[in-house]
Amino acid sequence: MKFLTFEYQGSTYYGVKVKREESAWILPKLFADFGEDENYPKTLLEGISTYHTLDFQEIVRKLVEKARESSDPDQYKAPFSDIKFLAPVTPPNNVIALGRNYKAHAEEMKSKVESLYVFTKAASSLEGDEAVIPNHQDITNELDYEGELAVVIGKEAWKIDSSMALDYIYGYTILNDITARELQREHAQAFLAKNLKGSAPMGPFIVTKDELPNPESTSIVTKVNGEIRQDGSTSDMVLKLDELIAEISKYITLQPGDVIATGTPSGVGAGMNPPQFLKPGDEIRVSINGIGTLTTYIEK
Amino acid sequence: MKFLTFEYQGSTYYGVKVKREESAWILPKLFADFGEDENYPKTLLEGISTYHTLDFQEIVRKLVEKARESSDPDQYKAPFSDIKFLAPVTPPNNVIALGRNYKAHAEEMKSKVESLYVFTKAASSLEGDEAVIPNHQDITNELDYEGELAVVIGKEAWKIDSSMALDYIYGYTILNDITARELQREHAQAFLAKNLKGSAPMGPFIVTKDELPNPESTSIVTKVNGEIRQDGSTSDMVLKLDELIAEISKYITLQPGDVIATGTPSGVGAGMNPPQFLKPGDEIRVSINGIGTLTTYIEK
Repeated sequence: MKFLTFEYQGSTYYGVKVKREESAWILPKLFADFGEDENYPKTLLEGISTYHTLDFQEIVRKLVEKARESSDPDQYKAPFSDIKFLAPVTPPNNVIALGRNYKAHAEEMKSKVESLYVFTKAASSLEGDEAVIPNHQDITNELDYEGELAVVIGKEAWKIDSSMALDYIYGYTILNDITARELQREHAQAFLAKNLKGSAPMGPFIVTKDELPNPESTSIVTKVNGEIRQDGSTSDMVLKLDELIAEISKYITLQPGDVIATGTPSGVGAGMNPPQFLKPGDEIRVSINGIGTLTTYIEK
Repeated sequence: MKFLTFEYQGSTYYGVKVKREESAWILPKLFADFGEDENYPKTLLEGISTYHTLDFQEIVRKLVEKARESSDPDQYKAPFSDIKFLAPVTPPNNVIALGRNYKAHAEEMKSKVESLYVFTKAASSLEGDEAVIPNHQDITNELDYEGELAVVIGKEAWKIDSSMALDYIYGYTILNDITARELQREHAQAFLAKNLKGSAPMGPFIVTKDELPNPESTSIVTKVNGEIRQDGSTSDMVLKLDELIAEISKYITLQPGDVIATGTPSGVGAGMNPPQFLKPGDEIRVSINGIGTLTTYIEK
């Protein structure tokens, strides 16, 4: 199942994309007209937090069925051509992001992978698919992309053993961890360099885990203006998905809807010779097999 | 005005403490019974986000007056002896925290103050006044306190000039930035070392800025089991309040309810000779003149 959050006709909704349909079933409308629960979830985060994963999918499946059989199904659908994509969820603890989780990327950044490198991308930096973000020319000459697989957490996790960790995953999405490189070097912590306005595009969808059977051997490809820059596989991650959930949850308490960005493969602009940073007007497309493509534009 | 969030008789409320009263007026009940707006704020964060600061205080003042004149004022009050304090707000972008913002503390940590040191404390690490937090003996031998003045933001702030920055402050509170020192040294980023469960006690109140006229020359005192450890003044901050809001908002977009922890004075356990870290059963009290005292207990 593919969930999304979006603006449509002046309101914000969450919805579900069914198979090859190029539209979203507007879930709050389905809950209101066909649901049994008056206190239905008003956001996707509430849906993830309130229900067991499989229960929620089953409820959504039935609601879509009822809408399809209704006299006017189209009133419950928002065509993708008419919506503005937003980040699918606002995670309760910012986006928790790993650095240096691919060996070849650590090498191109002349970093070591020995020590844990975990920081956050603020909720106020989130954007959806097809966002135009500021070019930040006033503050950085080294704006860079990082295409990443992001894991969405389904239930509270604290000190989870790696053997159980995959149970805590709700689904997957794509994140572009946009970074101002010279600020990352100059500051003692990465937080500000990683949080220029619009620097956390995420989406377009959260794909539930049943639809991505091999998250640990799927391809990540990042293109800038059509040119392939990153062509990696999640099989090259240093900490695998189960290990990184176990490792992070040793320390902090993850909550439903939290997002972990799992690091980027080699091929970022800073690693090229000579380095090639993002310019006004650039188009970045991060594609992950089984999830889709996240497109971001740098304002002209 | 002093705002707080708390548990009382099985529910979570926000409220206001008036003068020397040792109880909270339960604001959602006042809004429901005496308010004019059916869509009244359900949390303190909503109150801060929805209304202009002064308007909100004026509305609250009138509600308390009406409750006081009602036939049974006591039904609207929760005695402090019967409540559990929670963190007054859950900031939208985690707590944004500064390191090394007092020269003498940077020196005791053998750090330099030249580069910006900004990280976050996760929402899931927040606790209220009088919380008992885990002793974390399984994961650190160097659990340490950091008493800090925390600024609460009142309106969206991006690229704010320092001359305007104080206008963006809603009020002040106290934060204890509990830190696992060896993890802070071992990890490439401070996030995990700063986010063990319960490591962000905050409160007891948000004091609106009109009640703290001299936030930049107020005393911060931290005691462990009654022994004075930190005895500082906010006048020793490297980046002053206006400068740090200007500096942080150069990069990230602050939102209403965001909290900036402004760094800690010297006197942390790691800086003592020999170092003295927190032990099971310890009581830590951080007092800021004009705000109050935040007490935290380490579980036995």
